[in-house]
Amino acid sequence: MASHKRGRQSFALPESPVITAWASVAGKKEAEGPLAHTFDLKCRDTYFGQDTWEQAENHMQKQALKKLAEKAGILLTDFDLVFSGDLLNQCIGSSFTLRNLGIPHLGLYGACSTMAESLLMASMAVGGGFGDKVVAMTSSHFASSERQYRFPLGYGGQRTPTSQWTVTGSGAALVCSGGKGPRITACTIGTVRDMGVKDANNMGAAMAGAAYDTIRAHFEDMKTGPEDFDRIVTGDLGQVGKELLMELARKDGVSLGGKLEDCGCMVFDNTTQDVHAGGSGCGCSAITLCGHYLGKLSTGKLKKILFCGTGALLSPTSTQQGESIPGVCHAVCITGGN
Amino acid sequence: MASHKRGRQSFALPESPVITAWASVAGKKEAEGPLAHTFDLKCRDTYFGQDTWEQAENHMQKQALKKLAEKAGILLTDFDLVFSGDLLNQCIGSSFTLRNLGIPHLGLYGACSTMAESLLMASMAVGGGFGDKVVAMTSSHFASSERQYRFPLGYGGQRTPTSQWTVTGSGAALVCSGGKGPRITACTIGTVRDMGVKDANNMGAAMAGAAYDTIRAHFEDMKTGPEDFDRIVTGDLGQVGKELLMELARKDGVSLGGKLEDCGCMVFDNTTQDVHAGGSGCGCSAITLCGHYLGKLSTGKLKKILFCGTGALLSPTSTQQGESIPGVCHAVCITGGN
Repeated sequence: MASHKRGRQSFALPESPVITAWASVAGKKEAEGPLAHTFDLKCRDTYFGQDTWEQAENHMQKQALKKLAEKAGILLTDFDLVFSGDLLNQCIGSSFTLRNLGIPHLGLYGACSTMAESLLMASMAVGGGFGDKVVAMTSSHFASSERQYRFPLGYGGQRTPTSQWTVTGSGAALVCSGGKGPRITACTIGTVRDMGVKDANNMGAAMAGAAYDTIRAHFEDMKTGPEDFDRIVTGDLGQVGKELLMELARKDGVSLGGKLEDCGCMVFDNTTQDVHAGGSGCGCSAITLCGHYLGKLSTGKLKKILFCGTGALLSPTSTQQGESIPGVCHAVCITGGN
Repeated sequence: MASHKRGRQSFALPESPVITAWASVAGKKEAEGPLAHTFDLKCRDTYFGQDTWEQAENHMQKQALKKLAEKAGILLTDFDLVFSGDLLNQCIGSSFTLRNLGIPHLGLYGACSTMAESLLMASMAVGGGFGDKVVAMTSSHFASSERQYRFPLGYGGQRTPTSQWTVTGSGAALVCSGGKGPRITACTIGTVRDMGVKDANNMGAAMAGAAYDTIRAHFEDMKTGPEDFDRIVTGDLGQVGKELLMELARKDGVSLGGKLEDCGCMVFDNTTQDVHAGGSGCGCSAITLCGHYLGKLSTGKLKKILFCGTGALLSPTSTQQGESIPGVCHAVCITGGN
């Protein structure tokens, strides 16, 4: 077996897997935001017709998976494998979605980096010949996240200026060995980086270091740089984290300036939607990738992006025990055209 | 890229990755059990010298990782990639272990199936040429699990006859493209199966169906059967789940009789250690594999085993909302000799 490893953290995909289909499901607030026209399904009901918010999250993922099969023109049972994970304790958003569907499933936990992590693993599976028609999927839900990570919504707690708004949404992408669509040409696996940030309402700051580490590693390992990309896309750093990332890059002599976009800064309109530092959650980068970006890559409006999923690896328990918040970031290089 | 896929759920590894080293860390109760002599490190302190049980779990994983590097004769920074996950909310056992070590990390969530899931993913990574020196690792801790899933230990709640005792322990295995040691020749990815069991104190029953599904899928996909294995090893079905699995097999005309062993039935001595239905937790199959089984495979006392990690995909939230408990099981075929 020839080694596809490049440098310390990356691997190349000479027979680049193809993203042949993608689907996105968005909640009410997301459907009122600037990317509304890029989502496949939108729902105005926070419960998505279910009894609880956790069940709503399952329902959302199931809708994304069904829409993906529909757009790919195949049956659910034609999927070879699903890589998925979410923010809920024990990833019940994902496991209950896959219950009794008969689809092989490998569960992930990468916090909000999960869309990139699942795409990276799907690329490994397809690129290594271990499966075809492999799904990368994730979700998050504002209400299920708030009550699990912070406070019951009924408390009406005030949000700090650096806090971000968890996106209600689910995205799914189908990775195949052949076909038409954007291609995954290389991936970079993140390391866990802790910058000592202890404020669970400032996750952008906690993730910025991990984001820069991974972007720099991708450049070094793949012998490339910002000039080779149309966009460098981070998952959910938000306004605070995005500025910190640019500063870290500047100090290191790298200009990300015109290339850097953050899904957390794009999914809501902060002048009218009042989300403070931006959007967050697994669903944030998932619906922005599986709506806006893959759309633009497939029509050739974008030629090459580095999609960098960012995750804050905290739990309420670790925060209560005084721990700081480690971050992680995985990067996937996607090229456009057919 | 040649396809390694076999049947619906399995893949073969023609250039079989090698498990060149393994390490296990066990807690006090485990070190008093019948497998005590197979563990590398044993600790009589539930806190492993830390302030909290969650930190103890991190410490345990870090010890396992360090011991693994030591036994492999390499540095921590020589590891290419770590696949790991655990039972703690947001998998903090794993992410805090990897914090600032500079090792690429992909987080998994497979409940108690994580040792098998991480080995399966490591096999994909090594078998596909995406990395060498890839670690598969997991942990669980009785005290951190009890308070998260059930009640604070201080309540002194009574345990039901079908309940299992979460193992305090961590196991790590190093998967490489070459070298000496047991080899991974094929893997089967599980599907999420829900048999309708709602009792969170009877997880063996909840997982038995998934275990049988995966074992049967492995036999079908790889055109093999119980007669080709020295042992078929399940992770933590315990006494109740093991009997259910044998019954499911019998009804299907398959005899697992003399071949089936369950780590949950092996790690404690139920006549003297009073653990009710047996051991459980990610650490259960991890320390049994990374102590007893890999030892016997490396010396040739066992020639071929099917290692089947079993996971119950519940959360306290899903249980409180009246949901039943889905199970999953991933299988890894390991052959002995050098």
